[in-house]
Amino acid sequence: MPRRQFKFVGQNVLRVDGVEKVTGKAKFTGDLVIPGMLYGKILRSPYPHARIVGIDSSAAEALPGVAAVLTAADIGGINPYYNGRPVVAINKVRYAGEPVAAVAAEDQETAEEGLSLITVNYEELPAAVGLDAALGEGAPLIHENLSDNICSHEHVEKGDIEQGFAESDEIFEDISTFPMVYHYAMEPHSVIADFNDEGITVWSSAQHPFQVRGDLARIFGLHPTKVRMVIPFLGGGFGSKSYTKFEPLVVALARKARRPVRICNSVTESMLTVRRHGARVRLKTGVKRDGTLMAREAEIYLDTGGYADNGPAVTIRAATRVLGPYRIPHIRSDAYGVYTNSGSAGSFRAIGAPQTIFASESQMDTIASRLGIDPAELRLKNFLKKGEELRPKLRGMDADLASNLKRLVSASQWKRRSKKKGAAMGLACGATNAGGTPISVAMVRLQPDGSLIVFAGSTEMGQGVRTVLSQIIADELSLPLEAIHIGGADTKVTPYDASTGSSRSTTLMGTAVLRAARDLKNQLLKIGAEAFHAKPSQIRLVDGTLICGEMRLTFREALQRRFGGSGGELIGNGDVGPEITGTLPVIWEIGMGTAELDVDEETGVVTIKRYVSVADVGKAIHPEGCVGQEEGAAMMGIGHTMFEQMVYEGGQLVNSNLVDYRVPGFKDVPREFHTVLVENKDGPGPYGARGMGEGGLVSVAPAITNALARGYGIRVKDLPLTPERVWRALKERAKRK
Amino acid sequence: MPRRQFKFVGQNVLRVDGVEKVTGKAKFTGDLVIPGMLYGKILRSPYPHARIVGIDSSAAEALPGVAAVLTAADIGGINPYYNGRPVVAINKVRYAGEPVAAVAAEDQETAEEGLSLITVNYEELPAAVGLDAALGEGAPLIHENLSDNICSHEHVEKGDIEQGFAESDEIFEDISTFPMVYHYAMEPHSVIADFNDEGITVWSSAQHPFQVRGDLARIFGLHPTKVRMVIPFLGGGFGSKSYTKFEPLVVALARKARRPVRICNSVTESMLTVRRHGARVRLKTGVKRDGTLMAREAEIYLDTGGYADNGPAVTIRAATRVLGPYRIPHIRSDAYGVYTNSGSAGSFRAIGAPQTIFASESQMDTIASRLGIDPAELRLKNFLKKGEELRPKLRGMDADLASNLKRLVSASQWKRRSKKKGAAMGLACGATNAGGTPISVAMVRLQPDGSLIVFAGSTEMGQGVRTVLSQIIADELSLPLEAIHIGGADTKVTPYDASTGSSRSTTLMGTAVLRAARDLKNQLLKIGAEAFHAKPSQIRLVDGTLICGEMRLTFREALQRRFGGSGGELIGNGDVGPEITGTLPVIWEIGMGTAELDVDEETGVVTIKRYVSVADVGKAIHPEGCVGQEEGAAMMGIGHTMFEQMVYEGGQLVNSNLVDYRVPGFKDVPREFHTVLVENKDGPGPYGARGMGEGGLVSVAPAITNALARGYGIRVKDLPLTPERVWRALKERAKRK
Repeated sequence: MPRRQFKFVGQNVLRVDGVEKVTGKAKFTGDLVIPGMLYGKILRSPYPHARIVGIDSSAAEALPGVAAVLTAADIGGINPYYNGRPVVAINKVRYAGEPVAAVAAEDQETAEEGLSLITVNYEELPAAVGLDAALGEGAPLIHENLSDNICSHEHVEKGDIEQGFAESDEIFEDISTFPMVYHYAMEPHSVIADFNDEGITVWSSAQHPFQVRGDLARIFGLHPTKVRMVIPFLGGGFGSKSYTKFEPLVVALARKARRPVRICNSVTESMLTVRRHGARVRLKTGVKRDGTLMAREAEIYLDTGGYADNGPAVTIRAATRVLGPYRIPHIRSDAYGVYTNSGSAGSFRAIGAPQTIFASESQMDTIASRLGIDPAELRLKNFLKKGEELRPKLRGMDADLASNLKRLVSASQWKRRSKKKGAAMGLACGATNAGGTPISVAMVRLQPDGSLIVFAGSTEMGQGVRTVLSQIIADELSLPLEAIHIGGADTKVTPYDASTGSSRSTTLMGTAVLRAARDLKNQLLKIGAEAFHAKPSQIRLVDGTLICGEMRLTFREALQRRFGGSGGELIGNGDVGPEITGTLPVIWEIGMGTAELDVDEETGVVTIKRYVSVADVGKAIHPEGCVGQEEGAAMMGIGHTMFEQMVYEGGQLVNSNLVDYRVPGFKDVPREFHTVLVENKDGPGPYGARGMGEGGLVSVAPAITNALARGYGIRVKDLPLTPERVWRALKERAKRK
Repeated sequence: MPRRQFKFVGQNVLRVDGVEKVTGKAKFTGDLVIPGMLYGKILRSPYPHARIVGIDSSAAEALPGVAAVLTAADIGGINPYYNGRPVVAINKVRYAGEPVAAVAAEDQETAEEGLSLITVNYEELPAAVGLDAALGEGAPLIHENLSDNICSHEHVEKGDIEQGFAESDEIFEDISTFPMVYHYAMEPHSVIADFNDEGITVWSSAQHPFQVRGDLARIFGLHPTKVRMVIPFLGGGFGSKSYTKFEPLVVALARKARRPVRICNSVTESMLTVRRHGARVRLKTGVKRDGTLMAREAEIYLDTGGYADNGPAVTIRAATRVLGPYRIPHIRSDAYGVYTNSGSAGSFRAIGAPQTIFASESQMDTIASRLGIDPAELRLKNFLKKGEELRPKLRGMDADLASNLKRLVSASQWKRRSKKKGAAMGLACGATNAGGTPISVAMVRLQPDGSLIVFAGSTEMGQGVRTVLSQIIADELSLPLEAIHIGGADTKVTPYDASTGSSRSTTLMGTAVLRAARDLKNQLLKIGAEAFHAKPSQIRLVDGTLICGEMRLTFREALQRRFGGSGGELIGNGDVGPEITGTLPVIWEIGMGTAELDVDEETGVVTIKRYVSVADVGKAIHPEGCVGQEEGAAMMGIGHTMFEQMVYEGGQLVNSNLVDYRVPGFKDVPREFHTVLVENKDGPGPYGARGMGEGGLVSVAPAITNALARGYGIRVKDLPLTPERVWRALKERAKRK
């Protein structure tokens, strides 16, 4: 097959939303002013666990400028639960920060004053903050209808674990912990809701508009088509805006106020709204003396907070993602989501992966070290081959792992640099079953002026999805990018898309728009064939024109030819379903990295001198975009490895600001920072693309702790690597010597 | 071909919007409350013709509660003209009632008070009200850039008119007049507009949302996709809500106020906004002694008012519609639209037809009487045969005229009843080149719950289009009507549709939705074929289920099978363009009628005892709906024949209310009132349907005046048939005797 020539795909075209964003014209939910809009604020529980004895909102209701006060008393007529949580606290609260009431007023100040006039009578209950407290003997029950605090449990089994350990020459067992961390998207969660006789309209910073639509329809008893979600730009998501957050509360408040209501979270409020699961992972692995993995047993506890949110899915993923991309004949893995009296955890870039891959890739290095095998060699020896199954009921590995690791080894100069005396260089490999649910539908509509409107439900949250989809369409239809108009989802207009997350959009929505473009192309070719008295196969599309020999017909003219006037439009549809891969996952997402460190042994401060990241992108639609995603993911990994942790004291989150909650800054960027894109064209997406953007995150923590172990002889199993923690480990090492 | 069995098509199913309407839940534009909405009122010129010397709006602007005042000073940055008129009067006014300024305020009363505070300094000019004044020697120029008051001119020529008259045995020449009349839809024109950074949103009682979108985009310099038209139910249209009315003014006012603004007309204001063209028609026809038509010369003057609106199109149609459905070898027809100092005329149910068909069908009876030929026989003799051309560049006659007239003759018992002694029975035949512009695009979207959302831009204004489209879709997809959801146009969502008018929707949008349904059906069959391991041709669709032998798959299950989850949707598209007929018109619309009268010779009061109407519908999708349309059209015809006329005195419309402007009431319904639907299945629409709903209007006036002539020996050539006019004619007849 001749190699296809692309004009846009594979090129670093300007972002289609770039001008809008750099000129400040791009609208985020918080920028919108809906006529007649009220300003809302949420009254939050001061207690981590308490019974609500009574609420008196009469003084707030009487305050001039207050339009409505919402409490549990107002949600009698609806189905108030979603993702395990109520629209507003009913009878009790399960974390400090839980919404107990909300006020809608003419302005923000009045809403806040209104909050101060609400009296809530609480009866405090013993709280269980953190895994130990929630799992301990006699722990308070957070959900009274359960017999313990286990929210969800996933069990994975393959082979015979006892036999596996029996056949092993060496057995390794480690316990590691991973902190609760926050996504810290620049834009906190923002929602505007309107509820009138026509139904519900919600403008929201939601990654998954159609899932929120489904929840709202169920909660308020409406047909989904009566719920309209409009999604402007998002100022970052990273999973924090996945699934339904407090949209139902804002809708309920708007329903009561009979006017649109806007609630924009503060950073503190967003940190209480969602976070990554803190985790404790016990990992036991048996190996042959030659390094062959024989058996792995994992026990994972995930701190899911007061309500389930997406915790059950995180639990399911964690139980598999702990296995690494390795051939292990005997497996037993158990993951538990645990209710605790803290803000709920949910999706966060590569759900359940950083916690478990930190555990498993750390242990891989311990094994390599004990067996005297080069860490890269140990991994190469055990990698799944293409097509090989990690465990039953999952699609076999679809990437060439060895080629990725070889690229990492060569780009990082692993063989030379890791062997240098005093080198603190570590390596780690991640593979995650990603791609989410393969349901995406797209529509492209060619207008009489030759412009093309794209209806694709993917949310633009900085990842560049509008640019990538536009590139695919531009090449398929040979249209200039300027002719392509692509906006955010509006569920009244935009066809169904399962979600924007799990690295799925390029692969799945990319395929849907590609198919929609080809559907439209066929219609244009048919018009051309009639005009030219030719076969469709004799016609080419070049820059918005149909060409056949010397004959030419612009798309505009083709529309005029079809409809005979200045109106009309051609509509192309495309969809993608499970047929794209048959079984899940849609993709195996591959990310590998090496880290080189310097440690100030007097202070314990770790400096990352050099980080090399490898992303298997299949085919890079927008190479710079891919590099940006990979670097961003690695920086986020550096955050949770080095600095970040949400600190609860006495049931209260005490560091919910940028001073006390430390995210990486520019000075934390590794002095050398390289990204390698592997393009084996073996992904299921357009032109062989596969999802990326999460893979760069997962190898960072183990690559860094492995470097610490190799360079400084310390094995830190708890994150983040605070100077104190590193300093103490160095002291322990000194004592051992 | 076996006869197709329908379950919904051809049945009198309940209207799909029936429950909504009888329970009062159906929303019309005036029912909508947009959050933050202001109330607007228009200041109108008191003079029919004047120069505007100055406007002082400062007092209005200073009135508390007034948000904005719009005058010509505010429209500098836009392209202020559309359909020949300005957004708001610029420098001069051309009719009493022309918008000169507008106020938006917090409530209606304040807006009205604001109007009273605006001072406009006029310099009155001589006015030309009515055709005689505007066409007379030295008439004041209404548009100074023209050399006379002719707005538009259409000339139709065929053969050699002089030769035609020379070869004729008898020549007939008559002058008839037709009054200015008003549509009197129950809902006056209503518009709500919002203008913000995202663009324009307009909720409007507009029949042609896409044409208004185009005008607004041009006026305000935006891409059409930035203009969103949302069309609720209309409380009647009849052409009065065709094309752009005062939407631009409301948008300009909202732009200035930076808030949504609503303007709902009073009845008086709507009567000043649009009406039917008053007309004077001179008709000269030459015939052979045996009744063969040889030549026709027509000179038509149409009173188009101060601005063109849709007058040029009315003029074009009038020049052809005066020819009747007859074979005439020699033709010369000239129609002129004439500017006058009165409110603009525009589209009205069967544009240019009632005025001209009244002239021509009256004269046909005069010819029949003079030649001693039965009026039905004379028409049968001269009817165009199927396929025969009326004039060059028009598609040949597509209906079987003779079969229609034979049905009328038999249903009305013409042969027996018209010959009875003292019988006052008259007959007339109309054929209009109708169907508008053949561009319609539709989309149907099957949802995971098995419901189907229809996106079709036709406006529901009482004519039942949503029901008819639903019936077509229900039969094509074998879905229950309850599963089909069809709303009004929202140009952000709904694909392009040229218009709702000219009897086009069943034929054109019906074809588009039929094609969309079949596109969707093919997708379902493909899913079924895979599921059943069968060929698509082996599968039937029955009640939302795919059936193949014993195997069954509901549409819901088919979607689950396609997408493997609870999401996804299937989208079917359909469009129609000029290919539907090749050349215009899309349809020939046929309406014929007989009237039987009683006249009180002492008072001149005419009573219609019996009216029989024949409509050629091709195929009746909803027979009761067709009968309702036909009866409604006939009643409207009775209105302009018997009572209706807009009276201008001193340049002022003086009878703009239901007391002084007399529309037919229930007591005016003919004592016997029959409608016959002819279903020759020869229309270009679905299942052989052809457009209807206008045809019932055109024969009424000549059938009644022909009955007067036959029964009472008076030939009234001027409408309406006021008792005084009839009484005077009876007196004249007595004098002649």
